[in-house]
Amino acid sequence: MKAYDGYLIDLDGTMYLGKERIEAAPGFIQRLKDAGKKHLFVTNNSTRTQEQVAAKLRQMDIAAEPEDVFTTSMATAAFIREHNPASRVFAIGEEGLFDALEKEELTLAEENCDYVVIGLDTSITYEKLAKACLLVRAGAKFLSTNSDRALPTDAGLMPGNGAITAVISVSTGIEPTFIGKPENIMMEQARKLLDLNKEQVLMVGDNYLTDITAGIRAGMDTLMVCTGFTRREELPFLDPKPTYTIDTLTEWEFK
Amino acid sequence: MKAYDGYLIDLDGTMYLGKERIEAAPGFIQRLKDAGKKHLFVTNNSTRTQEQVAAKLRQMDIAAEPEDVFTTSMATAAFIREHNPASRVFAIGEEGLFDALEKEELTLAEENCDYVVIGLDTSITYEKLAKACLLVRAGAKFLSTNSDRALPTDAGLMPGNGAITAVISVSTGIEPTFIGKPENIMMEQARKLLDLNKEQVLMVGDNYLTDITAGIRAGMDTLMVCTGFTRREELPFLDPKPTYTIDTLTEWEFK
Repeated sequence: MKAYDGYLIDLDGTMYLGKERIEAAPGFIQRLKDAGKKHLFVTNNSTRTQEQVAAKLRQMDIAAEPEDVFTTSMATAAFIREHNPASRVFAIGEEGLFDALEKEELTLAEENCDYVVIGLDTSITYEKLAKACLLVRAGAKFLSTNSDRALPTDAGLMPGNGAITAVISVSTGIEPTFIGKPENIMMEQARKLLDLNKEQVLMVGDNYLTDITAGIRAGMDTLMVCTGFTRREELPFLDPKPTYTIDTLTEWEFK
Repeated sequence: MKAYDGYLIDLDGTMYLGKERIEAAPGFIQRLKDAGKKHLFVTNNSTRTQEQVAAKLRQMDIAAEPEDVFTTSMATAAFIREHNPASRVFAIGEEGLFDALEKEELTLAEENCDYVVIGLDTSITYEKLAKACLLVRAGAKFLSTNSDRALPTDAGLMPGNGAITAVISVSTGIEPTFIGKPENIMMEQARKLLDLNKEQVLMVGDNYLTDITAGIRAGMDTLMVCTGFTRREELPFLDPKPTYTIDTLTEWEFK
C-alpha cells in the first residue's frame, strides 16, 4: 500500500446504507483524521445541502463538518461559475441544488437562460420539463448533476436523475454534460479543493460503475469496499480493476 | 393511380394544423364519402377520446362520427384485451387513454399489474413514474401509446410521449412496445377495422417519419401531402418514397 495524503470518500454504500450506518465508517474517519490526512465526502446526491449531509453523518457518529462535504450540486454550480459568473440558470431540482447555485451567486431565471441544470426533483412537473426543453432548444447549455439511472430506496429502485434527464435529451436530441461521478468534472474539482496532485489522492467507494470508474478516469488510485453496490464476486470481471479491494473499511491501514 | 377501397387518414398536419383547419380537408372527406370509400382517422394523440376528436373535426366542418376515429389509446387498449381481457393495467395518461381502457373493460390497478401503459400526461408526477418503474421491474409488460419525441404547440416543441416514456426505459433498462404510428400494431388494427386487405388501403399523412413509414411497414400504399411536417424538398432524400406525393388534398382523385 502506498501512502496517500488525501481521500475522496463516497457516502451511500460506503459510510451508510440508506438510513443505516455502516459499522466501520466512524472508526475509518477517526483513524483518517488521527493520521492527519485530508478528505472530502463526494456524493451524487443533489437534493441535500452540505450542511444537511454533514448533519446526517454526525447523527450516525461519523465526524463531519459542512466543509467536508462536496455534492454534485456544488460541483455543478462551481462549474457554471467558473465558465461565467453572470450566467442565468434555469434549474430543476431540490434544496441542495438551489442552495449550491445561490452560494455561487448565480442568477436563477426562466427565460434567456445560459444554462439548464437538471437535478433530482421528486416534485417534477410537465411544465418544468417543457420549460427545460424549450430553453435547451433555444441554445442554453444543458447540464445534469448526475447520470444515475435508479435510486435505491426502501420501496425499491426509483427513477434516478439520469432517467429524468432523458426526457429532455430524448425530446431535444441534445445530450447533457453530466457533472457527478463517474464523470471527471466533479472529481477534478474535489481534487483541487484538497489542493493535492492526483497521485496523492485515493478515491474510496462501493460502486464500481460510479465511484471507482470516477477515480480511474481522474487518474487516481482507487479503493473499493464491498459493503454496498458492487460485490467481491464481480471483481474478476472488472477491467480495469480497483487499485485495492477490501471487505470492510476496518481493513484499511493509513500510511 | 390505383383504386383504393379504404383510406387511413392522419389528423394533425393532414386535416388541421393545431387549431387551424387545412382548407382542402372538408372537401377531401366529402369526396371520399361521395365515392363510397371506407375510412378511419388514425391519430397518435392519446389524450382525447374518439368523441372529442370527432367533435373537433366537425367544428372545422370536416364530416366525422366517433366511430370514424381510431386513436393510439384505443389501439393500446384493444392490444391488451386481445392478449388477455382479464389484464390488470397501471396507466399514466389523460382522458383519452382511460376512456379507451374502460371501453375495453380492462381493470385499472396500481399493484400486481400485467401491463404498464404510458400515454401523454401533462399532470405527470414523480410518484406515477416511480410506480411505473417498480411495476415494470416486477415483470409487468411495458407499453407506450406512441414514441413521438416532441409535440408541436403554439409555445414551441414540448416533450412528447416518447420522451416521457424514456424515464422508465432508461431507469429500468427495459424497452417498451410502442403501439402508435410508425409501429405496425395500430396500423394492423385499423386495417382490420376497415375489413380490407392491405392492398386495398391507402395511408394518407403529412409526416414521413410517422404516417408514411407506418403505411410502408404495414405493406400499404401511401399518400404524402405536404401541408404539415415533411416538406416536398425532402422527397429526393426519402427512401423508400411514398407511393404518391401531393401538395394539397384537392389534387387527389378518388377512383
